[in-house]
Amino acid sequence: MRSQQDGAGGLRHLVTLDGLARDALTAILDRAESYRRFPGQPAYEGRELAGVTVANLFFEPSTRTRASFDLASRRLGAHVINLDLQSSSRAKGETMLDTIYTLEAMNTDVFVIRDSEAGLPEFLIDHVAPHVSVISAGEAHLSHPTQGLLDALTIRSHKRRFAGLKVAIVGDIRHSRVARSASQVLSTLGTTDLRLIGPQSLLPPEDEFRGAQRFTRIEDGIAGADVVMMLRIQKERMAQAAALDDAAYFREYGLDAKRLRLASPSVLIMHPGPMNRGVEIESAVADGPRSVIREQVNNGVAVRMAVLAAIAATLTRHRRPL
Amino acid sequence: MRSQQDGAGGLRHLVTLDGLARDALTAILDRAESYRRFPGQPAYEGRELAGVTVANLFFEPSTRTRASFDLASRRLGAHVINLDLQSSSRAKGETMLDTIYTLEAMNTDVFVIRDSEAGLPEFLIDHVAPHVSVISAGEAHLSHPTQGLLDALTIRSHKRRFAGLKVAIVGDIRHSRVARSASQVLSTLGTTDLRLIGPQSLLPPEDEFRGAQRFTRIEDGIAGADVVMMLRIQKERMAQAAALDDAAYFREYGLDAKRLRLASPSVLIMHPGPMNRGVEIESAVADGPRSVIREQVNNGVAVRMAVLAAIAATLTRHRRPL
Amino acid sequence: MRSQQDGAGGLRHLVTLDGLARDALTAILDRAESYRRFPGQPAYEGRELAGVTVANLFFEPSTRTRASFDLASRRLGAHVINLDLQSSSRAKGETMLDTIYTLEAMNTDVFVIRDSEAGLPEFLIDHVAPHVSVISAGEAHLSHPTQGLLDALTIRSHKRRFAGLKVAIVGDIRHSRVARSASQVLSTLGTTDLRLIGPQSLLPPEDEFRGAQRFTRIEDGIAGADVVMMLRIQKERMAQAAALDDAAYFREYGLDAKRLRLASPSVLIMHPGPMNRGVEIESAVADGPRSVIREQVNNGVAVRMAVLAAIAATLTRHRRPL
Repeated sequence: MRSQQDGAGGLRHLVTLDGLARDALTAILDRAESYRRFPGQPAYEGRELAGVTVANLFFEPSTRTRASFDLASRRLGAHVINLDLQSSSRAKGETMLDTIYTLEAMNTDVFVIRDSEAGLPEFLIDHVAPHVSVISAGEAHLSHPTQGLLDALTIRSHKRRFAGLKVAIVGDIRHSRVARSASQVLSTLGTTDLRLIGPQSLLPPEDEFRGAQRFTRIEDGIAGADVVMMLRIQKERMAQAAALDDAAYFREYGLDAKRLRLASPSVLIMHPGPMNRGVEIESAVADGPRSVIREQVNNGVAVRMAVLAAIAATLTRHRRPL
Repeated sequence: MRSQQDGAGGLRHLVTLDGLARDALTAILDRAESYRRFPGQPAYEGRELAGVTVANLFFEPSTRTRASFDLASRRLGAHVINLDLQSSSRAKGETMLDTIYTLEAMNTDVFVIRDSEAGLPEFLIDHVAPHVSVISAGEAHLSHPTQGLLDALTIRSHKRRFAGLKVAIVGDIRHSRVARSASQVLSTLGTTDLRLIGPQSLLPPEDEFRGAQRFTRIEDGIAGADVVMMLRIQKERMAQAAALDDAAYFREYGLDAKRLRLASPSVLIMHPGPMNRGVEIESAVADGPRSVIREQVNNGVAVRMAVLAAIAATLTRHRRPL
Repeated sequence: MRSQQDGAGGLRHLVTLDGLARDALTAILDRAESYRRFPGQPAYEGRELAGVTVANLFFEPSTRTRASFDLASRRLGAHVINLDLQSSSRAKGETMLDTIYTLEAMNTDVFVIRDSEAGLPEFLIDHVAPHVSVISAGEAHLSHPTQGLLDALTIRSHKRRFAGLKVAIVGDIRHSRVARSASQVLSTLGTTDLRLIGPQSLLPPEDEFRGAQRFTRIEDGIAGADVVMMLRIQKERMAQAAALDDAAYFREYGLDAKRLRLASPSVLIMHPGPMNRGVEIESAVADGPRSVIREQVNNGVAVRMAVLAAIAATLTRHRRPL
């Protein structure tokens, strides 16, 4: 894969957090902080993307991530095209590339891609023109970089540091792009105590998440945790892989008030959404004083604005003269 | 249900016309008049909703009402998100609330909700943040407030008064949110002579539409009427409830040129659309000189602009400081 | 059909290129050239359509043409409504007209219509208000005027002239709106040597494409050609009408490097997209140095901007005063 940064260190693409340096990550988080407006404040409106066209190519349905990218783009002045690409009519590699080239020829500057299969974002990075960028909005079980960034921003807002934090992730880690991207960004930013919690069959292969501890009992994993990230369970997969129905999963791995007391008193409870209340998390905990779940959503728009604005600034330097 | 107005009398929500005072209604109609542009004039463009995000949540398909809200929002400078929420994937109360909270966390300011079931708009009013508003774009058989307002604006434009008017509504009153909202707004604005016309089985329960006269013969009801509002028939319901097919319905209740002569010579013919031509209304009447049906559509955009602008002005006072 | 131009020669509608004079065509191409920005340049942004509302009514799915019109409209400042009108729920004439009247009443200024059946664009021209315009984005096998214009612009950019050019069109000419519109515009602009190439059963009736030569062997038709336009094949139709499967079609009519050598060394290879690579065209040719296929897409946005801007300028003169 080509580099995600240009020679001057400017952000060109964002398809994975793996390999991005601390400075690059921190720059995005700082910019995102400047764009963040809390609910009830007027949203940030700017012209950073004036004249920029963003195409959202979602091969996987996603109301919230799509709305987040859509608003982030438009609040910075971009034109947005949302393309309906049902997985059924999925074109093969070559034809997908023709779709991309067609949109490029219409002066599309940024492609936002979400796909349940692996490989498309990297493939596109290798094929788009020098003045075109690719952002992954979720790729298979591999990568969800803007989710990782919004998670990092949420933690930083409350903890002001990453070193020394105990971070627990609970659920189907094996198939989770959220867990992978979070692990990558936190590790680069200095977190060393990462705990992965889930049924044995849903913990990741040994060669992934290097340095993380693994737990099959949630009580062991969340003891003293500063951050607990609950993952959304996929019910069918859970039933198949771990032989757990909703009630059994909640009994074994659900986060309730009692288990919460094992964590640090200042713990942050996170969830990428949408939540299965009463399955992976108790409602009282999801809505309780330690939950920062809605802040994550708020930070998500800010992070996507920051990524888009950083990329647009880089693209400007690669444009052809009029 | 919480009040639709804030302490200062500013419009916060609009889910029903029931209980809104004459002054509040008149203020909306006056504002709508200032936004109205006739076909062939350039549409009004303003910045009243600059920085405002409107989310259209339509659980019921609706091309025209959705387009009307969409244009009203964008012509005043709002960002609009249209969410695809098919009734099949309808989430239960709790999860719907999570969707709302998620969009709130993305700095959505106004939710426009259309739903074939009852209860969601009021439920949301009780749960959204103080800086977020709810507008109903049609709720079950209960309420369609912007339709009621556009009907009132259309009548006011021609008649300059509401007191002393004879208003006839024809069709399936029992299941009609259009009839209920029209009756509420007209009654508050001073109309006392309201006639409900339809097959016995489709007239409303006795405890609704207080003070209205009921007719099962259309000739009796429209005699001398200043306004005749024809409702769109739902063919399946009509067949089931009143044992009438299209032709029989037209024979019994359809508005044709002959029946029209029973009304006042200056009668206004209204219809909320879309029309079943040849079923509830004859084409010559729908397109004739007494028809104001397209004016209703034109007024619809103006009324929705007025409601959105009034709500945005109120929200500004409830925002959190930067 | 009413004229597509108003008394002063201003463009009012565009549903066919047939009958448009050379001056009118040239004016559109000149304007399009001023709007064109190559990939990598910032897209043109203007206010020519400020205050204008464009409704895209697509009865036929079309990702690329719809995106092209959408971007063209928005980059000139229009509000765009995209209406979902699946062919299944296709309304009959009368009801379609009610939809149009409803959107007119919402101050829609321009309708962009794509339809697999014939007749709707002309029907609408005869029914819309004097301040409303109709643009065809593809009508049955009959007309695709903006495609014809973008083809002409692409040729003009490279050849600087139309007279004296040898232009070959290859494929299912009989059912092709692309071929018909190209033939019309090229003929008006001065091209006299037009060759139609395809299986006998897919060549057009004798009374169409007057003056064109017909070939069933591609080698005969493209000899010395300055321009070769390959059409997208419809596989089912090809199998049925000409008893050719993909491989056989490529063998008989596919454009490969060997056949390309029969054309002029400065030949332009064109295709309206989306391409069936390996069926009507070899990938090496589609992506080779003589291909202007992506330029066509780029010119498509510019041409649609030009048509919309010309129409908006005309509409301004037909507006009602405030």
